Amino acid sequence: MTSVFIAGDWGTSRLRLYLCDGDRVIAQKAGPGAVGAGVVHEDVLFSLIDPWLAEHGPIPVLLCGMVGSRNGWVEAPYAPCPAGAGGLRRGLVRFEARGVSIAIAPGLSGTSPRSAPDVMRGEETQIIGALAEAPELATGKHLLALPGTHTKWVQVSNGRITGFQTALTGETFALLRDHSTLAKAGGADLGAAGEGFAAGLARQHGAPEGGLLQALFEVRSRQLVDGWSPAFALDFLSGVLVAADVDGALDLFGAQARPVVLIGDAQLTERYARALSRWSVEVRQLSGETCALSGLRTLFQINS
Amino acid sequence: MTSVFIAGDWGTSRLRLYLCDGDRVIAQKAGPGAVGAGVVHEDVLFSLIDPWLAEHGPIPVLLCGMVGSRNGWVEAPYAPCPAGAGGLRRGLVRFEARGVSIAIAPGLSGTSPRSAPDVMRGEETQIIGALAEAPELATGKHLLALPGTHTKWVQVSNGRITGFQTALTGETFALLRDHSTLAKAGGADLGAAGEGFAAGLARQHGAPEGGLLQALFEVRSRQLVDGWSPAFALDFLSGVLVAADVDGALDLFGAQARPVVLIGDAQLTERYARALSRWSVEVRQLSGETCALSGLRTLFQINS
Repeated sequence: MTSVFIAGDWGTSRLRLYLCDGDRVIAQKAGPGAVGAGVVHEDVLFSLIDPWLAEHGPIPVLLCGMVGSRNGWVEAPYAPCPAGAGGLRRGLVRFEARGVSIAIAPGLSGTSPRSAPDVMRGEETQIIGALAEAPELATGKHLLALPGTHTKWVQVSNGRITGFQTALTGETFALLRDHSTLAKAGGADLGAAGEGFAAGLARQHGAPEGGLLQALFEVRSRQLVDGWSPAFALDFLSGVLVAADVDGALDLFGAQARPVVLIGDAQLTERYARALSRWSVEVRQLSGETCALSGLRTLFQINS
Repeated sequence: MTSVFIAGDWGTSRLRLYLCDGDRVIAQKAGPGAVGAGVVHEDVLFSLIDPWLAEHGPIPVLLCGMVGSRNGWVEAPYAPCPAGAGGLRRGLVRFEARGVSIAIAPGLSGTSPRSAPDVMRGEETQIIGALAEAPELATGKHLLALPGTHTKWVQVSNGRITGFQTALTGETFALLRDHSTLAKAGGADLGAAGEGFAAGLARQHGAPEGGLLQALFEVRSRQLVDGWSPAFALDFLSGVLVAADVDGALDLFGAQARPVVLIGDAQLTERYARALSRWSVEVRQLSGETCALSGLRTLFQINS
C-alpha cells in the first residue's frame, strides 16, 4: 500500500494541500476556501493536484473542514461524541472522482458541560493531530482551546473528545470592528497584542463590575472622552472579548489541574495565553496548521 | 412672554416635532433623523415648521438629541455630571436662524460607578422629563434604564443625574441579526417577547455557567441541531442579550431598594421588565416619547 497521499485542510477561508509521503511533506499548495457560485469543488481541487497526480499516479486524497458540510462538496455527517481518531475514521465519507479515491472527514456533534448541543467541522482533525503531536494528551483529561471566528473549547478524555462548547469570539470581534459604531475610525488589522489588549484584559478579567455589553461601549467612550487611538481601542476590544471568552469557558469547564492546550495561529493563541495567565492557568501552544496536517496523516494511516 | 414654542427630539433615526402651548400639544410632525450629505439641518427643520411659524409668528424652537452632536447642526458640548434640569439649561446652545430663536440641549458626560467615562445625548432630556412625569423620582436615589441601540443605565440622586453606564445591547443585537452567521435565515423583526425570549433569559440569567460569547453560539447550534426556527432563535438572542445587559448593570449599580424606572418604547421596556423580574426587581415603565416631550417642556419653562 502506498504511503504517498494528498492531505487537504479545506476551510471557509483557505484550502491548504500537502503532498505527503508518510510523515514527510514533499510539496504543498494553497487554494481558495469557499468556492463561488457555479464553481465546482472537484475542478478547484484537480486544477491544483493534477501535477502531483501526473507524477505519482492516482494517489488517494483525504480532506477535512467545511468541504464536508452541507454546502460543501460532499456532505460528511457529524460523528457523535465521544469520538477519537477511530470514530472519525468510521465517519469518513469516501467516493471516487476522476479515478482518484477521495475521503472527507466528518465534523463532530456533541454537547457542552451544560448540555447545549454544539458542532464543529475541521477542528476535530486538528485535535486528533494535537494528540499525535503531544502524546501526553492521549491519556487523562485535558482542556483544549482552538481560538478563531468560532472559538472551540474542547474536553478530551483519554484520547477521545467528550464534549465541547463554541464561543462566538472572533466573529463578534470582526462584526464590531467592521460594522459597529465602536471602531468606525479604525479598520486597522491587529498585530501582536499590545497595551490596549492588556487594558482590555484588565477591564474584563473576572468582570468584577459590569458585564461584557457595558465594557463594549467603553471602546467608544474612551475614544470620545479619553482620546484613545482607534488602534489602541481595537486592541482593547480584543482584550475584552478574549477575557470574556476565557472567563466563560473556565466557568463552564471548571478549574483545570493541567495546562490549557491552545491550537491555532501563533498571534491569536498568544492572546489567549496572556488572558489565561491572568487566571494563573498555564498553557501549551500548538500550531493549528501543524495539527491539521498531523490529524489528516493520523486518519490516513489508521485508514490504510 | 409667549407660552407657545416648538419642541423637537432629533435623534439619529427620527425627528419628532411638537407645537406646544404650555402643557398642551397643538400639533405634531415627524421628519428624518440623520440628514444625508449635502442636506442642511436648517432646511429640513424649516420645511416642516414653516406652516406653524406662518400661523404663530417666530416662536422659539428647543431641540435635543443628535442634532447637537459634532456631526449635527450646531454642537452643544456635553454638560458635566452631576446635572439636573438647571445644569442642562445652562448648557443650552442658542442661536438664531431665519429670525427664529433656536436652542439645542447639551448632551451629558459622566462616569460609571467604576469610573469609566461615558456620554449620552438625548437621553438626558428624557430623564428630566421622567422626573417631571413621576415627581417621586425627584428625591432620593433611583436607577433608570433607557433601553435601545445604546442602553443607558442612569443613577439619579435628588433630581440630578450623578453617573451612568452605557451598554451596547441594541447595536449588538442588530449586528448579530443582520450580519452574523447566527441568523442568516432570519431577518424577521421582533414582535412581543415570546417563548424564545424566555428561553434566552433563562439561559443567561446570572450566567451560572458559561459566558455571553458561549451563549451566542447556541443561537446557531440550536437551529442546526435542535431545529429551532429562525424567529424563535432571534427571540432567544434578544433574551440572552437583555439578560446579560441587566446582569452587568445590576452588578455595576448594586442592589436597588426601589423599582428600576424603564424609559422607552413599550415593547422594549417590557423585555427589560421581564428580565428584571428574574432578579426580583420591580419596575416602573414610562414612555420614551412622553418623557422626551416633557423634558423639552421643562427645559423651555425654566429657560423662559
